[in-house]
Order: sequence, then C-alpha cells, then structure tokens
Amino acid sequence: MKNEAIVASLFAILLISLASFKTKAQTLGKSVRDTSAIFPKGQRAPASNFTGIVWVQQLIEPDSDFNIPVGYVTFEPGARSHWHSHAGGQVLLAMGGIGYYQERGKPIQILRKGDAVKCPSNVPHWHGASPTVGFMQVAITPNTATGRVTWLQPVSNKEYNALKP
Amino acid sequence: MKNEAIVASLFAILLISLASFKTKAQTLGKSVRDTSAIFPKGQRAPASNFTGIVWVQQLIEPDSDFNIPVGYVTFEPGARSHWHSHAGGQVLLAMGGIGYYQERGKPIQILRKGDAVKCPSNVPHWHGASPTVGFMQVAITPNTATGRVTWLQPVSNKEYNALKP
Repeated sequence: MKNEAIVASLFAILLISLASFKTKAQTLGKSVRDTSAIFPKGQRAPASNFTGIVWVQQLIEPDSDFNIPVGYVTFEPGARSHWHSHAGGQVLLAMGGIGYYQERGKPIQILRKGDAVKCPSNVPHWHGASPTVGFMQVAITPNTATGRVTWLQPVSNKEYNALKP
Repeated sequence: MKNEAIVASLFAILLISLASFKTKAQTLGKSVRDTSAIFPKGQRAPASNFTGIVWVQQLIEPDSDFNIPVGYVTFEPGARSHWHSHAGGQVLLAMGGIGYYQERGKPIQILRKGDAVKCPSNVPHWHGASPTVGFMQVAITPNTATGRVTWLQPVSNKEYNALKP
C-alpha cells in the first residue's frame, strides 16, 4: 500500500510541473499588459490646470539648443486636463491604462497602450483617464517658439461623461 | 493505508497552492521588466544606414501641419545605426533592453529603460543595442524644417567594442 503513496506523490509532482508551465504562460500574458514602470511617476501636476489627481515627470527639460519639452503624465481614474491648446501642436503616446482624448467639436476618442495622437496646432482639446482605469502617456510639445500651451476652462462632468452609454 | 494516499494528495494540493502563490510574485517581477510590447516592432530598417538587424515602426507620420516624425526602433543585440546627425536635434526615450549612445569625441553612454537623451543639433552620434541584449527606443525628430538626418559612416567594430573592459 506504500506504493499508493508513492504514486500519489509522483502525481503531485506532475501536477506541480503542469501548474508551473501554466503560470509561465500567464507571466508572459501579464507582462504585456503592465508597462507602468518605464518612467517614474514624478510630481503632482498643478491643480489649477487639471481635474483630479495627475502626476508629471519631465523627461526632457527646455534648453538653449532646441526646446522640446517631453513629459510622462499619469492620470488617476477620473482625472483629466482642462481644455487647452498648443500653438506648436503636441504628440501623445499612450503608454498604458485607458485614456480619453477629445478635440473641440469631435467625440471623445479612447486611447490604449501603443496609440499615438497628433494634436493639431491651436486646436482646443483635453486628455485624461477613463472613469475607472488610470492612463499613462508621453506628451511631446514641439515648436515651443510659437507658444507652449494656452489653458482654457475645465472639462465639465457632462463633457467628461458624454461617452457613457 | 489508503489514508496515506489521501494525505499525499492533500500534500500535493498544498504544494500546488504554494507554487501558484510563488508564481504570482514572479509574474509581478517579470512584468516590470518586460515592456517590449507597447508598440509593434514594425518593419526592417534599411540596411544602408544600420549595422545588424533593426526594426522601425513609425508612430507619427509627417504632415502639412507640423512635422515631427516619431518612431519606435528595436535594435537586436549587436545592431546599431551608422554615425549621423540631425540639423534639428533628436530626443531618444529608452523603452527597454540595454542601449549604447555615443556623441563624437565622447565615451559610449549606456541607456536603460526610462533614460531620456537629447542629441544636440548637428552633433554626429550613433545609437544601438549592447552586444548581448537588444534595445528598444522611441526617437523624436523635431525641427525637421532645418533637415531631418544626415547619414555618415558605419560605426566600426573597434568603435562599438570600445566599451568592453
């Protein structure tokens, strides 16, 4: 009867091996989704230009050679910028989470990891996180000689919730 | 004696549970490191301007409003660009792996995930992967009105291997 115990133990080892194989595959799947750790979260963004909790890490500071501020922005769920425009335009790269982007007069566009958006110069727009999932983006602001950003009014709850069914 | 088999089975279930817990922690650790999947790998870069295997995915195409090409570049181990310069400068964001960056007359600089580099305008430089680990970067090329890129000679093996002890 000791054989039964040995067989059960071997079966246990087999099951553990299978469990290990399964989790390797899960690891690979998970790693594709979690990408929040490339850049540090940085500092709280000024409350005067944002609704909710937003973090900004400057990646490239302005200097005397050529001026192209690049920042990493983390929006906590429900957070968003005020309406604003860039005289020199802006490029957004979606790095993770679920983001909202809207240009004046157009519907809200959902941004997901890997999406790239070019905000045309002088077009009022806003960006932020979805209500339940945060959003991480890289923001590139070129042509700053023509003006970096003009802040406008906050995005109202009605505007923000317009996407809901 | 059947009890032995039952005990062994229960022990097996316990071990499987423990194995599952362990791999959850591993998953979290792994996911922080693997960030290669934010952008697609794209197409092979032209062999005329690179040594080794390089992939490029354009994220932002040029247009008539403002012209700021943004690309995602994957260098396989040992691969690197030729020496080149940008009249309007360039910004590199290190997205994963281990990268090399060198400006003419300076030592090779190692780039790791989260590093940001501003290549000054008209300064000859090159970038690529380490010999054994690939490298992924976002390349931002502003001020293209002044010229996008001037390609120079290949990076010799002697130049590339100068970092080795």
